[in-house]
Amino acid sequence: MSIRIGIYGWGNLGRGVELALRANPDVEGVAVFTRRDPSTIVTKTGIPVYGVWEVEKFAKKIDVMILCGGSATDLPVQTPLLAEKFCVVDSFDTHAKIPQHLSAVDAAARKGDKTALISVGWDPGLFSLARLYASAILPEGKDYTFWGKGVSQGHSDAIRRIEGVADAKQYTIPVNAAMVAVREGKEPDLTTAQKHERECFVVVKEGADKARIEKEIKEMPNYFADYKTTVHFVSEEELNEKHSGLPHGGVVIRSGKTGLEKEHTHTIEYSLKLDSNPEFTASVLVACARAVYRLQQEGATGAKTLFDIPPAYLSSVDRDTLIAKML
Amino acid sequence: MSIRIGIYGWGNLGRGVELALRANPDVEGVAVFTRRDPSTIVTKTGIPVYGVWEVEKFAKKIDVMILCGGSATDLPVQTPLLAEKFCVVDSFDTHAKIPQHLSAVDAAARKGDKTALISVGWDPGLFSLARLYASAILPEGKDYTFWGKGVSQGHSDAIRRIEGVADAKQYTIPVNAAMVAVREGKEPDLTTAQKHERECFVVVKEGADKARIEKEIKEMPNYFADYKTTVHFVSEEELNEKHSGLPHGGVVIRSGKTGLEKEHTHTIEYSLKLDSNPEFTASVLVACARAVYRLQQEGATGAKTLFDIPPAYLSSVDRDTLIAKML
Repeated sequence: MSIRIGIYGWGNLGRGVELALRANPDVEGVAVFTRRDPSTIVTKTGIPVYGVWEVEKFAKKIDVMILCGGSATDLPVQTPLLAEKFCVVDSFDTHAKIPQHLSAVDAAARKGDKTALISVGWDPGLFSLARLYASAILPEGKDYTFWGKGVSQGHSDAIRRIEGVADAKQYTIPVNAAMVAVREGKEPDLTTAQKHERECFVVVKEGADKARIEKEIKEMPNYFADYKTTVHFVSEEELNEKHSGLPHGGVVIRSGKTGLEKEHTHTIEYSLKLDSNPEFTASVLVACARAVYRLQQEGATGAKTLFDIPPAYLSSVDRDTLIAKML
Repeated sequence: MSIRIGIYGWGNLGRGVELALRANPDVEGVAVFTRRDPSTIVTKTGIPVYGVWEVEKFAKKIDVMILCGGSATDLPVQTPLLAEKFCVVDSFDTHAKIPQHLSAVDAAARKGDKTALISVGWDPGLFSLARLYASAILPEGKDYTFWGKGVSQGHSDAIRRIEGVADAKQYTIPVNAAMVAVREGKEPDLTTAQKHERECFVVVKEGADKARIEKEIKEMPNYFADYKTTVHFVSEEELNEKHSGLPHGGVVIRSGKTGLEKEHTHTIEYSLKLDSNPEFTASVLVACARAVYRLQQEGATGAKTLFDIPPAYLSSVDRDTLIAKML
């Protein structure tokens, strides 16, 4: 019997989840929920589509609901709302607000005796695991997270809001010299701006003042002002042809010392190179849905993070085989 | 109150554990056990030393015993023997024999209501975790493990057994072209010999026939015959000066596909660069001892692997802080 999955939200992430389900023999998509008119959506693999207003009818028909909304306004409301009736997984990624989100989801899940797993993906998610394992093993050390090369939706949106801009894509790029210093165990002090630079591809509206736009981008506080920023003006065709994907990735590096006089340096590095950020995040969500299902079967309730989950719970392979083949 | 740790076996690994304990505020070394005359050993931090024949007296004085013997002959006997009376951690690393070791340790631990954690270190251990997480997330893909650059004790020993050899160090080195092909997502089929080459530094006894020794090394079945092998003859002084350390490391890479037509490639890479293999392995053992202690407090019994352990159990940091700072 397959684990019955619901997909709540039909953007890039929801579409990625649909595709990720195909790669996993033990899960099955039973419903997509959308705020739009369901009749306007056709899924690639034939999963039926319903309005979000119909979700309560599925309480007994879905084992795990994968929430595919955004972290800014969707998930803070949706995850606590659904966690009382469904086992849920989400990819809530506003780091500073994770504790309050966890606590809201935990209360809801406990009320309904359900299991929830929040902030799943690659950062937070796999990168968090890399930080945790590495710091537990090398307590005397320092860790660094570099993001990119990849498209930042938030920064692309910020450029699009500037007057005269028709479209834009922003790449976050790790600074190579900073990575080299970290890998050498030098434990430098680095701000986010010292670790990253920003490259922008911008399409302007006819007659727009490019010099003013470039200045507005480079001086935008928080987003660009502190960073080395490069702006390229390109045609709409070039943007669509060369910059339509959503690649991303990054590296977590921890270097630490051991030995009587701390004479030995060790470097632990975890890196991702992703052609499609939403499809990869969706793949993490699906593996985590399996873990949630198993936790619920065991009677666990409340909200968890990846820090709480035995790694084997994420795999479709049985424990004996995992131990024989992967340990 | 600290977690009281015993160190069973006083070689490179045991000495590494003693040093690793200092880096962890919540653990305390209470006894070292040796097969030698305890009066001949002085520990760096003053942990008292006892004969292995005295170990039973410590049943109530040690929370977790860290076993620091070798996988060939020590651990298959020692871990099951001690697991009935003590909570234990070991670094058993003979991959093919892990299932039978697990089962022997499990039976002993259950008999005494104790918790055991076996095959801890970096491979098996952290590399196993990297393989498990990556394959759970990208089921349609392939993973590769590269070892090195690092000293292989087994291969160094094999050279030392050749007639006329006074001393030797062997480095296992990953083949760069193979790593590049894997990182590009080409999913090549590669044997261990295609992924690694071997570099040997050999000191010969006076009058020994270097040509014969080089031939014997390069033709040694299993160890060298299938590999590109380089032999350097060096003086004893040079060997001691330049090759006395025990560095090691390696990389686990999984590449996998997602998308409707599998058009997107993702690469997950986990790598280690270690100045001291035994001190790093010891650091993993100490973090795992903490996890064993917590599992025992919860009432868990039997033999576990890292696949079974919630990651947070390895850290000395409390869950709320982990979630706030590392997730």
